[in-house]
Amino acid sequence: MESVLVLGGDGFCGWPTALYLSARGYRVGILDNLSRRRIDMELKADSLTPIASMSDRLAIWARLGHGDMPFFELDIARDYDGLRRVLREFKPTAIVHFAEQRSAPYSMAGSTHKRYTVDNNISGTHNLLVALVELDMDAHIVHLGTVGVYGYDGSEVPMPEGYIDVEVIGPDGTRYPRSILYPTEPGSIYHMTKSMDQLMFQFFAHNDRLRITDLHQGIVWGIQTHETRLHDMLINRFDYDGDYGTVLNRFLVQAVMRHPLTVHGTGGQTRGFININDTVRCLHLALQNPPKKGDRVKIFNQVAETKRVIDVAQMVARHTDAQIAFVDNPRKEAAENDLAVTNAGFQGLGWEPVLLHHEQLRETLEIVRRFRFRYAPETVAARSLWTREQKPGVVRKKVGNRHA
Amino acid sequence: MESVLVLGGDGFCGWPTALYLSARGYRVGILDNLSRRRIDMELKADSLTPIASMSDRLAIWARLGHGDMPFFELDIARDYDGLRRVLREFKPTAIVHFAEQRSAPYSMAGSTHKRYTVDNNISGTHNLLVALVELDMDAHIVHLGTVGVYGYDGSEVPMPEGYIDVEVIGPDGTRYPRSILYPTEPGSIYHMTKSMDQLMFQFFAHNDRLRITDLHQGIVWGIQTHETRLHDMLINRFDYDGDYGTVLNRFLVQAVMRHPLTVHGTGGQTRGFININDTVRCLHLALQNPPKKGDRVKIFNQVAETKRVIDVAQMVARHTDAQIAFVDNPRKEAAENDLAVTNAGFQGLGWEPVLLHHEQLRETLEIVRRFRFRYAPETVAARSLWTREQKPGVVRKKVGNRHA
Repeated sequence: MESVLVLGGDGFCGWPTALYLSARGYRVGILDNLSRRRIDMELKADSLTPIASMSDRLAIWARLGHGDMPFFELDIARDYDGLRRVLREFKPTAIVHFAEQRSAPYSMAGSTHKRYTVDNNISGTHNLLVALVELDMDAHIVHLGTVGVYGYDGSEVPMPEGYIDVEVIGPDGTRYPRSILYPTEPGSIYHMTKSMDQLMFQFFAHNDRLRITDLHQGIVWGIQTHETRLHDMLINRFDYDGDYGTVLNRFLVQAVMRHPLTVHGTGGQTRGFININDTVRCLHLALQNPPKKGDRVKIFNQVAETKRVIDVAQMVARHTDAQIAFVDNPRKEAAENDLAVTNAGFQGLGWEPVLLHHEQLRETLEIVRRFRFRYAPETVAARSLWTREQKPGVVRKKVGNRHA
Repeated sequence: MESVLVLGGDGFCGWPTALYLSARGYRVGILDNLSRRRIDMELKADSLTPIASMSDRLAIWARLGHGDMPFFELDIARDYDGLRRVLREFKPTAIVHFAEQRSAPYSMAGSTHKRYTVDNNISGTHNLLVALVELDMDAHIVHLGTVGVYGYDGSEVPMPEGYIDVEVIGPDGTRYPRSILYPTEPGSIYHMTKSMDQLMFQFFAHNDRLRITDLHQGIVWGIQTHETRLHDMLINRFDYDGDYGTVLNRFLVQAVMRHPLTVHGTGGQTRGFININDTVRCLHLALQNPPKKGDRVKIFNQVAETKRVIDVAQMVARHTDAQIAFVDNPRKEAAENDLAVTNAGFQGLGWEPVLLHHEQLRETLEIVRRFRFRYAPETVAARSLWTREQKPGVVRKKVGNRHA
């Protein structure tokens, strides 16, 4: 039986992935340092949904007839010996690696946050790679990257899956065909760490023949999966704060709370999107299709579609009668960009992605209404400024139905 | 007056650079955690030349009529507050950054060494970048990288200076011209960190408009510079051990000690070389030619010429009557490779490199003879194996004059 260790299995993507795999007969273990719960305390923010403790989550999951999932509370960036111990004890045949600080705004909040993000993400990922080599373990690593490593600034090149064919033009004009990692232009410290991860994966796949799949994921929307719906104690976390809330989920909370949907800049930023149910499906597909020993890193784009932020806001506004407020962009990024991302890899494995449609928002809106008493308005605004030149989010203009 | 803080100013390149700049009127400060001296103790190795303590070095330098050079004993990877304090106190207008673990074999010796190299090099460099942003300092960073980031495996593309023009070929065959960082294929954990540094530099140059120059240096040979010759207490370190000794310097020690010159594999590896006197000259040229605020990272190849290892060995053998012993290659690398590296950047600034010629070896040979009583034969062999498949260095064949 395949044994999958889910690093970061307490998080927004990790928890539903662990349940999905467990429900499908994998032997699943969860490793997490519970850092998201601690960062919530630091930010005085919280999941809109009341998430149960890990022990309650696991007790209910077992009571529902699924096997025990062992939980290892451990920091892979700081406790290398502990990591080795868990690997020897659990003997995973595959490792799903979500255990990185995943908020771009949090990574830009200040020196401490920048340093934490680099130290945590790089040392954690490197420790995992080193441990597998040291223990001579052939576990397939499936790592969650981000489509944001590619960069959004003015590139009109359709985003490939990791590699591109280029012709290098030599000093004398000679053309040399090569297949290279797509040159990254990350837009935050967080994205930079994912881009640095790529180089570590490339090295360990080449030097040590580790089997690695890297998934460049878009912005996730939605909350629940089939498994997290089975019991209130299994409910997934739902972030809507300025650091960890993803854009569509934040809009839905703002809409229910009758707050204007805050759009950064013009909203002309085009981004990749994916539903949380597709996140877990894609993870499963990646596990079922590992690279062979000695192969280069397998890279998939985990993106269902691309949308402009303003179009997402307008869809929510139309559907909920909300206003839209345009605020200064706290990020240093292109005001508007085109974006085409191929997802041929997963589509070729049979993936039929859920596309964004207002009908798909119903469950999230119901959950927001149910837990609106937990809403903390002071956490919603983006607080991190990318540089000294960026300004805190002053509202520049409001538009929308309630002005009409 | 330009104030230059030399990070790693106790090391093989850092110390002569600090003296060179001080002798030319720069206000120079040295920051170092003395890790090379500590690693020597760990490896039970030592510089062949007896290097003085930092306080003795600085006392003699001051007595020779040069100003005081402040010395800050500090670990930039672990003491961020200390680094900030030094930057505020010393107020450098430029920072020369040599403060990284620089031995490829040491970085591959085992899990602890891999993890130390990544944590030290990445956190140290990132801390420096973050501190400059936090303190709003516009110091020009000149960082020592390695020409090895480009990789040696089977690429026939001449190595450019950091960037290349490519045509990206889109899915429909459309060609998009772009200028990108040369795609790296580092061959060790050490080289990997330098490749990851590039991504950090790219991000901070773009997001925070830091002024950064990255120098991709070849293998350094030679020991002394004009300044380190001025007094025995100023003598530069001379590594010949299997981890930190660079190939030509190691051959010269072996030749004097009547030990065969140990060549890994066939010796068909082609590498870039540079004399230590050119290292300090290039550093000076880089300081005199900073990028402008907002520019992309300026990248120079700091390489005088390329040579096959076997050709370097044969030159030494001819000149010293030594034997050559071919041993198993402990590294995972192409057995033989071509290599063409442009150094047009520095040549365009007036650099006339010293080329390898047996006449140039005289001073090094004299120093080796003078300090041969300090020779520790047990430290010379390479000990780090790149993977489980590599074998410890068994001698396969000996050739050379003393067999003739």
